[in-house]
Amino acid sequence: MQEIERKFLVTSEDFKNEAFKQARIVQGFLNSNPERIVRIRIHGEQGFITVKGKPNATGVSRFEWERQISLAEAEELLKLCEPGTIDKNRFEVRNGDHIFEIDEFLGENEGLIVAEIELKSEDEAFLKPTWLGREVTGEVKYYNSNLSKNPFQKWQ
Amino acid sequence: MQEIERKFLVTSEDFKNEAFKQARIVQGFLNSNPERIVRIRIHGEQGFITVKGKPNATGVSRFEWERQISLAEAEELLKLCEPGTIDKNRFEVRNGDHIFEIDEFLGENEGLIVAEIELKSEDEAFLKPTWLGREVTGEVKYYNSNLSKNPFQKWQ
Repeated sequence: MQEIERKFLVTSEDFKNEAFKQARIVQGFLNSNPERIVRIRIHGEQGFITVKGKPNATGVSRFEWERQISLAEAEELLKLCEPGTIDKNRFEVRNGDHIFEIDEFLGENEGLIVAEIELKSEDEAFLKPTWLGREVTGEVKYYNSNLSKNPFQKWQ
Repeated sequence: MQEIERKFLVTSEDFKNEAFKQARIVQGFLNSNPERIVRIRIHGEQGFITVKGKPNATGVSRFEWERQISLAEAEELLKLCEPGTIDKNRFEVRNGDHIFEIDEFLGENEGLIVAEIELKSEDEAFLKPTWLGREVTGEVKYYNSNLSKNPFQKWQ
């Protein structure tokens, strides 16, 4: 399946009052190469394996395949992942017909908050909440696969 | 799950008369690093995604996780794999309580025939058929993940 997503920095924590869902995410990478990402994720009590292809030229669209796996399987597979686990709180906020997924990073990426919105087409319009900052779609340094190796707190 | 396997070269094609099953295998790697292999395989009409951990010191035992996926999914995921697809005929031969899986490689690995036997423990005894040659368990150059990058016909 092709996934179309735009990503933004978040400038305040006001989104937390609007969230209808919150869960902890821990994830690692069996491959962090952006041409063939293989991600193992524990989201709350659920496990997932996800494969992502290379983003297109604008960085908005990429192939994504995902399967749910058991929590025990995800825990075993996380042990095999490259060094550098991503740990974050995931908030979900309704925004008109869309949902923002907002990641408040923890650990070595603490201080970084990023919002993603999934769209049906690259140019689909959506409402911009007051807490939405600069767009970072396609900026490799904000990829989770990069944050696992080059965490936010080591930038600059 | 921990998988215990020994691997041998095959010195004649006599095994073909003993095979009770034969199918074509096409496979690629989303990661060919032996510490965290991610393999996409089409075996006959079935698709699989497999993750393998680092082999132990003897090369006999390693963690393996596998899930069946649809043929369509496997075909999509194969497109994302690293360059170097493995193409082979897989024969299965009964050998006492065990089964030998014998791979006759095609394409750039043509000329190489390898037999694998899965065991319950590293020192479990098994019968040695007349066509069974030198043991190559743990020899990295015979890993499929290596054959995809450094094929048999280019050796020497």
